[in-house]
Amino acid sequence: MSALVTQGRDPRTGEVVGDPLAETTPEELAAVLDAAARTASMLRATSPGERAAWLRAVAAAVDDAGPELISLAEAETGLTQPRLTGEVTRTTNQLELFARVLEEGSFLEATIDHADPAAQPPYPDLRRVLEPLGTVLVFTASNFPFAFSVAGGDTASALAAGCPVIVKSHPGHPGLSVRTGQIVADALAGAGAPGGSFAVVHGVDTGVAAITDRRIRACSFTGSLAGGRALHELAAGRPDPIPFYGELGSLNPVLVTQAAVDRRGGDIAKDYVASFTLGTGQFCTKPGLLLLPRGHGLEAALTDAADTVLPAPMLGSRIHQSFTSGVEALAGRTEIRRLRAPSVVDRPGSWAGAALFATTAAEVLAAPEQLLEECFGPVSLVVEYDSLEQAVAIVRSLGGSLTATLHAEDEDLAETVAALSDVAGRLVWNNWPTGVAVGWATHHGGPWPATTDPLHTSVGASALRRFLKPVAYQSVPDRLLPAALRDDNPLQLPRRVDGVLVLRQD
Amino acid sequence: MSALVTQGRDPRTGEVVGDPLAETTPEELAAVLDAAARTASMLRATSPGERAAWLRAVAAAVDDAGPELISLAEAETGLTQPRLTGEVTRTTNQLELFARVLEEGSFLEATIDHADPAAQPPYPDLRRVLEPLGTVLVFTASNFPFAFSVAGGDTASALAAGCPVIVKSHPGHPGLSVRTGQIVADALAGAGAPGGSFAVVHGVDTGVAAITDRRIRACSFTGSLAGGRALHELAAGRPDPIPFYGELGSLNPVLVTQAAVDRRGGDIAKDYVASFTLGTGQFCTKPGLLLLPRGHGLEAALTDAADTVLPAPMLGSRIHQSFTSGVEALAGRTEIRRLRAPSVVDRPGSWAGAALFATTAAEVLAAPEQLLEECFGPVSLVVEYDSLEQAVAIVRSLGGSLTATLHAEDEDLAETVAALSDVAGRLVWNNWPTGVAVGWATHHGGPWPATTDPLHTSVGASALRRFLKPVAYQSVPDRLLPAALRDDNPLQLPRRVDGVLVLRQD
Repeated sequence: MSALVTQGRDPRTGEVVGDPLAETTPEELAAVLDAAARTASMLRATSPGERAAWLRAVAAAVDDAGPELISLAEAETGLTQPRLTGEVTRTTNQLELFARVLEEGSFLEATIDHADPAAQPPYPDLRRVLEPLGTVLVFTASNFPFAFSVAGGDTASALAAGCPVIVKSHPGHPGLSVRTGQIVADALAGAGAPGGSFAVVHGVDTGVAAITDRRIRACSFTGSLAGGRALHELAAGRPDPIPFYGELGSLNPVLVTQAAVDRRGGDIAKDYVASFTLGTGQFCTKPGLLLLPRGHGLEAALTDAADTVLPAPMLGSRIHQSFTSGVEALAGRTEIRRLRAPSVVDRPGSWAGAALFATTAAEVLAAPEQLLEECFGPVSLVVEYDSLEQAVAIVRSLGGSLTATLHAEDEDLAETVAALSDVAGRLVWNNWPTGVAVGWATHHGGPWPATTDPLHTSVGASALRRFLKPVAYQSVPDRLLPAALRDDNPLQLPRRVDGVLVLRQD
Repeated sequence: MSALVTQGRDPRTGEVVGDPLAETTPEELAAVLDAAARTASMLRATSPGERAAWLRAVAAAVDDAGPELISLAEAETGLTQPRLTGEVTRTTNQLELFARVLEEGSFLEATIDHADPAAQPPYPDLRRVLEPLGTVLVFTASNFPFAFSVAGGDTASALAAGCPVIVKSHPGHPGLSVRTGQIVADALAGAGAPGGSFAVVHGVDTGVAAITDRRIRACSFTGSLAGGRALHELAAGRPDPIPFYGELGSLNPVLVTQAAVDRRGGDIAKDYVASFTLGTGQFCTKPGLLLLPRGHGLEAALTDAADTVLPAPMLGSRIHQSFTSGVEALAGRTEIRRLRAPSVVDRPGSWAGAALFATTAAEVLAAPEQLLEECFGPVSLVVEYDSLEQAVAIVRSLGGSLTATLHAEDEDLAETVAALSDVAGRLVWNNWPTGVAVGWATHHGGPWPATTDPLHTSVGASALRRFLKPVAYQSVPDRLLPAALRDDNPLQLPRRVDGVLVLRQD
């Protein structure tokens, strides 16, 4: 048994929660990896419909266990019951969405080119389909203990793709991770999934050992820039590099035009504060930068709104320390004015209040890297710009973001929209980025440092593509083809046949 | 002007061809990168139909210049006129395919989720489309001076995606690269493409400077494992890592069952030799490993066929040296028998004859890495296996390949097919891997070391996906949406609307 343990703590009090959790030993990890590797070929042989049933079973089990899980999560994360209740619903909706994606079948990209012996050179019968990559290692996040954790979107999309999943739990909610893992494993077993389809492991060293093990064929991660970069380099530095999908840091700029300020500046100020302090500023889509036209006159409205935000616990002491030092670093810069210092909370635990700073566009453009680092937590920087071009230049200097938000009226903003969409995965119009709708059109990604791969999303129907690879079958007899490619289309898939998209016949 | 120059040489004689070519200077590269960066937003605003016209103009120009280009290529590569003529056709067909892909429109993955205010939480209007990544750097290959070079598939697919392209020329055919570059640039300009859409640069240092420059947003490469790994690490190690698509080395195993040997062993032996010596063994799909059942009795047929293969020039002196030392290394191993030593060719240039070696499955499994390195050129290793399971274990020990080929009769081979498709991008049945059909169902990729990213192909309709990233638009007014997502569907695209695929209305 390992000497290393993880201990849950209540961020509201700093007190321990539950029993210490022993980290996974190398022997235990080897057994999990072996079981997953043995299961991979079994999973590949399952139909999308079978896997849809597994996901629905997991959703039902998580739903049934909701009150127990929410209570565990509340104690380990300090997040509120209503917030956690909403997140459980999102998590089960997400499992349900992937079940529908599986049943719809387009995700397989089944493509059939019939032979053309008359072509020069002759064209063979060629059929292409997406197949699972193999065992996926999922590093879970602290800030969404359900939606980006053990039963979250990465697990759901990898299982949907037909890949065994090994979850590396987050030390911020060890008890919840273990219990959710049991519920998921039981639900999968009850629905008929093979035994090695899913496992949860614990410990930093365990994660490093797993990501460099050749039985792992892909890895997903949601977390900090530093942690993600380190794991990305481990994945790329293997003797056999594997795909790595990291969702890292994002400043999520909000750009407000003069017309929007004129028309509804007060509401924008109030709603901006609500967005950057939502969940104590611990959303990956938290807006960290507010671009306002020079002379906007909204400072009082912003600080008044921030004053009404009650201090709340952050997810844990390390995140709280990073927030505190990030705020101190901003406060120490001469080119930055402090609009609102965070409330000093004189109690145990990881409590934080809202902080707001201001500077000018010229200062940001003079030293973008230093001013624009993401600071997790309820803190934001207000920047006055002189022209839309200058505001766009600031957004471009940030690198990639998960979102960019535009508050505007009926101006001609075609170039601004194009420029923002070049650096952000989602463009939000006259609304706020902190809500992430989970559906077919979702994209939750963006250029570095928002993610390590701008082609992919960690949320929404397309997320399972991360764990699928194409295979082409040339002149293979029908009896040996995967079901998706057989002449009689037994899975009733939409397919592309000789270049033409053919919808399923139902 | 740079002091460094590249000099073309005729591999048939070793003589210089054409004038020395000055490498691109840092100042010239900076100008090219600036022009491309300025052009990126213009390209993004073009319609797929406009870009289809550009590709057709390039195809027509390459076709018109065919005789001149083939003559240049013959002198610099030693490839034959018929071989090069076929490759030019493939190259123009490839440009034409991407034009059709653009016109068909599915590649944009336009997806519209209408708002659902009654949902809990309310669902916003959300629309997703793929947009170009920005300037793409293309490292070209030596072995396909047209299809994988200046006007090749990477250039065609990146331009199709709407990305400016900067081609790093291959030193094996500098004169051809310059001339093809002029023809492509003129054709693009004539068809109305912006000036910075395309450029060719020269020199190893130039390539390294470009791949680490922040104006480059993605990179593709076709070449050696060592070169590809080094560039992959440069791309991943940037302050802002970018997508890197490398097609590297592949052994392309061929597995023959006992039934196939019994029925048509002689033909298989003859055709195998034709496949591994085609183009002097310089295809990325060259089969390097022939798995035959113990007691196959085909050694004489194989060596007889190899004896009839005339020596031919390899692409250049470095490739020839690698071939010679690779063959010597195989010949020096005690566990390997030499079936046929390559002919000694006593003449200047880079001439090579066929070489064939044999060993047993047990020897391969004892030291797979050492025995199974790809050796570019007309050399192959014959391995006797004792069971299909053992043969599959050998294939698995290779890592990824672009192709795996199965010669069989009516046995039940479902498990074998599944196992092969797990490690190869294309499964070829009773045929040979050296021909690559270019169409909608093409997949030319595979797990490491075949490529650096198993999700992507460098050939076929899906190749442009490497250069596109999703963007989601939330509640953005119709007038500011990209054309692909507007309510009236002005591009007449197939789209997914509220989860349902809707074909275009024509």
